[in-house]
Amino acid sequence: MPGKVAVDIFTIDSTSVIPIYHQIKQNLRELIENEVLPAGQLLPSERDLGEYYGVNRLTVRQAVTELVSEGILRRQRGVGTFVATPKLTQIMGRVTGFSERIREVGRKPSSRVISLEVVPAPTVVARSLKQEPATLVYKLVRLRCADDEPVMLETAYLPQARFPNLKQVDFSEESLYQVLAQKFNCRIVEADETLEPVIMTDYEVEMLEAEPVTPGLLIETVAYNQNGVAVEFGKSVVRGDKSRFYYRIKTKV
Amino acid sequence: MPGKVAVDIFTIDSTSVIPIYHQIKQNLRELIENEVLPAGQLLPSERDLGEYYGVNRLTVRQAVTELVSEGILRRQRGVGTFVATPKLTQIMGRVTGFSERIREVGRKPSSRVISLEVVPAPTVVARSLKQEPATLVYKLVRLRCADDEPVMLETAYLPQARFPNLKQVDFSEESLYQVLAQKFNCRIVEADETLEPVIMTDYEVEMLEAEPVTPGLLIETVAYNQNGVAVEFGKSVVRGDKSRFYYRIKTKV
Repeated sequence: MPGKVAVDIFTIDSTSVIPIYHQIKQNLRELIENEVLPAGQLLPSERDLGEYYGVNRLTVRQAVTELVSEGILRRQRGVGTFVATPKLTQIMGRVTGFSERIREVGRKPSSRVISLEVVPAPTVVARSLKQEPATLVYKLVRLRCADDEPVMLETAYLPQARFPNLKQVDFSEESLYQVLAQKFNCRIVEADETLEPVIMTDYEVEMLEAEPVTPGLLIETVAYNQNGVAVEFGKSVVRGDKSRFYYRIKTKV
Repeated sequence: MPGKVAVDIFTIDSTSVIPIYHQIKQNLRELIENEVLPAGQLLPSERDLGEYYGVNRLTVRQAVTELVSEGILRRQRGVGTFVATPKLTQIMGRVTGFSERIREVGRKPSSRVISLEVVPAPTVVARSLKQEPATLVYKLVRLRCADDEPVMLETAYLPQARFPNLKQVDFSEESLYQVLAQKFNCRIVEADETLEPVIMTDYEVEMLEAEPVTPGLLIETVAYNQNGVAVEFGKSVVRGDKSRFYYRIKTKV
């Protein structure tokens, strides 16, 4: 673990109109981005930080608490507050499965199947997959991990009629997209993705082993195969304190 | 305003292992997506909903509170809880300014300039724009609105040396990208975008006139001109309760 830090790096501008706690947050963010405070660094106590910044310790606490909820800092009970390991950056903008996205940033993907059942399609699923209301669909719920840490709770819906015997597949081992390609000659080549920032529900917090009031990203996907047919509707909640999403975009696509 | 609703639409499965409040949330979401409960619909009171679902009103309250924080429902003090107007969907995956994205979904964009000053570049800005540390940059902070409702707080950094006299431009009227193109023959054609779900800070909540504990999306952009030079570093916070982001993606880009 890195050692003690100099105290003169903790600076704010007391003449600025920007709220003090916001300035402290910015200062800490900068020091971390800059690796003046590297991952794993133990921060001074909130009392000490208050002294260095020349402010009340409650003001420090507010800044630190928000940085914890954003996953920049990590509190360890009875020990102190540390600089967290950098967020998992998922490279988006291409149709790739979760496992591949995790592998390409040098982390180890794994999955736990929470449930796999056949249900009548919820309205939005039936509409997205261009099926009659309440058509039977598989509902596959998986907890997706990177280096054994849960980062995403994913629900995939697929028409049962199109993909017989999916229930026999062990999706803790096999990739859904690979199974579709190999067993059904159905290659996912395009997708519509809608992202929505949310606050994770208690249920999601519990499943993803997160802290209460963790920010999350809700990702809805409609995936199309090589013939332009919508074959999968996906709904995932990703831990915002652990993830960021990278897109490279061009004026014309 | 739509009238009263039937009470038998409020259903959960009391034998399910899924937590009751989560089921209520799902049920309400479905009814809204389905337009059984259209935008503007007044919901029954939490007490009445508790009766219809056969649960404690505190359980209903938890579900309703989360839907409010996600912008699906809207509480009006002394009146009740309504189905909110649908979120603003921004079509992403192309390099377009905010104004254009808002206009193409039929809303009216407007901007308020919070500040425009010259500052030494913060580390991450200098690095992204391939400038020496503390190079002087413009820092342009704008509040971006759709139909006069604040949806995004945007900070743009640009090297001062490259774009003289930017301070004379009225950015509440003029588009930054258009000014760069017309005055400096600098056309933005590519961008790296990093998205991070966050919980908005008190400062952001105040600027964006949101409720406390609103989910937000932090968007960092590095924009490149036609010669591949990084000319702008942007940092925006978007209200998650008002916005969703749509991407169309392909296997190969």
